[in-house]
Amino acid sequence: MKTIAASIALSAFAASGAEAQEGKRPRVAPAAVYEVAPGLGHFTDDVLFGEVWLRKDLSPRDRSLVTVATLVATGKSAQIGGHVGRALDNGVTPAEIGELITHLAFYTGWPNAISAVNETRAVFEKRSIATVTESDAGRLTLEPEAEAARAHTVNTTIAPTAPALADLTNRVVFGDLWQRPDLSARDRSLVTMAALIAIGQPEQLPFHANRAMDNGLTQKEAAELAAHLAFYAGWPRAMSAVPVLQKVFETRKTR
Amino acid sequence: MKTIAASIALSAFAASGAEAQEGKRPRVAPAAVYEVAPGLGHFTDDVLFGEVWLRKDLSPRDRSLVTVATLVATGKSAQIGGHVGRALDNGVTPAEIGELITHLAFYTGWPNAISAVNETRAVFEKRSIATVTESDAGRLTLEPEAEAARAHTVNTTIAPTAPALADLTNRVVFGDLWQRPDLSARDRSLVTMAALIAIGQPEQLPFHANRAMDNGLTQKEAAELAAHLAFYAGWPRAMSAVPVLQKVFETRKTR
Amino acid sequence: MKTIAASIALSAFAASGAEAQEGKRPRVAPAAVYEVAPGLGHFTDDVLFGEVWLRKDLSPRDRSLVTVATLVATGKSAQIGGHVGRALDNGVTPAEIGELITHLAFYTGWPNAISAVNETRAVFEKRSIATVTESDAGRLTLEPEAEAARAHTVNTTIAPTAPALADLTNRVVFGDLWQRPDLSARDRSLVTMAALIAIGQPEQLPFHANRAMDNGLTQKEAAELAAHLAFYAGWPRAMSAVPVLQKVFETRKTR
Repeated sequence: MKTIAASIALSAFAASGAEAQEGKRPRVAPAAVYEVAPGLGHFTDDVLFGEVWLRKDLSPRDRSLVTVATLVATGKSAQIGGHVGRALDNGVTPAEIGELITHLAFYTGWPNAISAVNETRAVFEKRSIATVTESDAGRLTLEPEAEAARAHTVNTTIAPTAPALADLTNRVVFGDLWQRPDLSARDRSLVTMAALIAIGQPEQLPFHANRAMDNGLTQKEAAELAAHLAFYAGWPRAMSAVPVLQKVFETRKTR
Repeated sequence: MKTIAASIALSAFAASGAEAQEGKRPRVAPAAVYEVAPGLGHFTDDVLFGEVWLRKDLSPRDRSLVTVATLVATGKSAQIGGHVGRALDNGVTPAEIGELITHLAFYTGWPNAISAVNETRAVFEKRSIATVTESDAGRLTLEPEAEAARAHTVNTTIAPTAPALADLTNRVVFGDLWQRPDLSARDRSLVTMAALIAIGQPEQLPFHANRAMDNGLTQKEAAELAAHLAFYAGWPRAMSAVPVLQKVFETRKTR
Repeated sequence: MKTIAASIALSAFAASGAEAQEGKRPRVAPAAVYEVAPGLGHFTDDVLFGEVWLRKDLSPRDRSLVTVATLVATGKSAQIGGHVGRALDNGVTPAEIGELITHLAFYTGWPNAISAVNETRAVFEKRSIATVTESDAGRLTLEPEAEAARAHTVNTTIAPTAPALADLTNRVVFGDLWQRPDLSARDRSLVTMAALIAIGQPEQLPFHANRAMDNGLTQKEAAELAAHLAFYAGWPRAMSAVPVLQKVFETRKTR
């Protein structure tokens, strides 16, 4: 009885402790953060959740997509569950989360995807979300001219050296994955961009940033993506993405 | 007796549950993958294990070596145990796995190696594999001309700025590690290439790709390595390795 | 009683087993390392702890700072606890560890920092270390000329493309984080350099290496940092940092 009473008292304390100092907003940072790294608590509650997540230049749904994409891409299993829950709250569907993971298996490797599946299934179970089924909508159509240009590049630059990789790229990645209706073309581009920035692989970013903008992403959203990712993948990855985005923006202006 | 009977029944159930929908092949993807990300189940069973692992351009033993190397290099502890088991099934010896981990401690850092040791020991225990002992075969001989060229490069480009790093490179990495008989020179090269591609560090790839081919790796195998790694380290890492491999192939043709 | 006696006997055995073969030094590598990868045991005890950690060109406190920074930056949660303990033994204060984590949240992403908090709290609890409180010392002063130059670069190269990222860089990273008195400017530079080298992000290294040396880091220490990091982030990351450091050293000589 004493133990129960004590733990109720502790819960009440925790709840009141969860209010921000100035009564402005509830704390997101767990108590452990304030105990070990009080500065991190300050920046988490006052800047990351008190400011960045509230900025209007990128929707909460998009912020969730790129955050989950970053966590999957960088293999941060411990944080995936929490952000999958937030993504569901922000309007990402369970099927879209499943397909985001499928998409990133190709862009950041199978091990990250398999680990993400396990974390995500735990969240789905807790929320009584049923098994995801594949969409029976028709395949997404790739813009024929852009797809022909892409295939030409792969066939001339990759195929002569690595024919199997070129074939799998054409037949599986673009001939199957990118045409699956379970995640929109625009969202696939968004999570691919996030993954490339997060793992520090800018080589493929111009292609995917252009593709994203062809698919409806605005320059304002692309720039805000970099600011958001600074917090989840670190400042250097975000800063190094800016000159690449700048060139893409400039190229598109002159067309 | 009851326990044995039960486990036989369970095995039989697992076997029948493991059949793919069309009866074509057993499923490798766990049920959770199909429940959360059905597309990932499809690609795992139809492409990765239904096609890539079966391609003849790289042996199953080599595919296991580069897969385990990729998992160690990228710190994917959750997947190491399963692939160490597969590597043993594909003819990699326990001592070779131990030495692969030792080798990659130098190429991808001690923390990855220590975590890999713990995952591997659990597999060895389950399979009643005894403690690994170091080979008492003679040291591997490095080709004197290539080794002199390598040392010259380190002594002129690294030593003037970072003398301790140069000394450790000459004395420990090439003066000890690469001469250990517990893993062949060709296999050391193979896992080093896999690690460099997987962590997105192409600067040292030309040196190690050339060394690998001097040690017997064919161009076909090197190209297939890139296709295989696309699945375990992500497409961008593999695609960015291709131009580097291409230059190495071209340089060797003209010699 | 029997169990206790047995565990005492086991402890004694472990202690005697912890002596190196030649009675020279205690083993650091756990028994599992010798059982699975005996070569790794040899290199851990004879080279990493038997030689590198004992070198005088970098203090044990600095070695601990850069080791913990590397583990946080690369998300190696399994090794953080052990090295936080070693850092405390080497004179890093609990508040400095907390602020190192806060600092690296910005430089390598929030998920790494949150995971590091959890590992660190467990060590603090085991050592009965009280909750960390923020320093009430005055803010650190940034050198006005260097800070103006930095802000100018951000305002001209980042702001036109990514205004939110530029604003957060000026207002939060340099206008708040770098001025916090909980970790010295020189130590912030040291852990930033370690993080950039460890994650393979050399673009920002010249800026931070110069800043570190402005803040008192010697060239000898910077070079030794590369040798130390080779073991914790892998040889390729360290080797690729050397030409970048070399250029910084040369630029400073001519000033």
